[in-house]
Amino acid sequence: MSEFNNVTVAKAANIYFDGQVTSRTLTFADGSRKTLGIMQPGTFEFGTQAAERMEILSGELDVQLPGEDGWQRIRGGESFDVPADSKFSVCVLSLTDYCCSFLP
Amino acid sequence: MSEFNNVTVAKAANIYFDGQVTSRTLTFADGSRKTLGIMQPGTFEFGTQAAERMEILSGELDVQLPGEDGWQRIRGGESFDVPADSKFSVCVLSLTDYCCSFLP
Repeated sequence: MSEFNNVTVAKAANIYFDGQVTSRTLTFADGSRKTLGIMQPGTFEFGTQAAERMEILSGELDVQLPGEDGWQRIRGGESFDVPADSKFSVCVLSLTDYCCSFLP
Repeated sequence: MSEFNNVTVAKAANIYFDGQVTSRTLTFADGSRKTLGIMQPGTFEFGTQAAERMEILSGELDVQLPGEDGWQRIRGGESFDVPADSKFSVCVLSLTDYCCSFLP
């Protein structure tokens, strides 16, 4: 799917880590939400509330998922899931364009 | 207006200047388009095809409009228009969140 139809987009960006991570929130007709975001190269720790699916559209990063010591390399076209109420870290190797879906 | 309803959003970001400027394209039911974007601090030159209205949602920049020698300071809540088929330069002073409307 290359585009999302019939969505509501919040005008103001979500801005994290002094703008090194920014995103836009999309709300769908069924009330579900996704964010489309950009991560600049760097290392960032995030916390989830709902479970999330992070789809990497382009770019490259290493992710350390909750409870794991190792890091996984994720490239454009790949994704990873993060459980609810947990923390995960990313080391962004090149500018990364992503789509985050909040899982039920 | 804090959000746009019933729009189509292209999933992949528009990426310029090695990711220092990125945006998402929104297409409205009437076929018109806008982009919602982020500019990192830096100096960038853009070229227009259609005329554009650049609405600065947050942040601060100086803009040099076509045919002008001087620069204008633009802050969050303010906007500037750029004619079609012309170039303009911006000096982004702090992370800037913007909405670009393509004028008829």
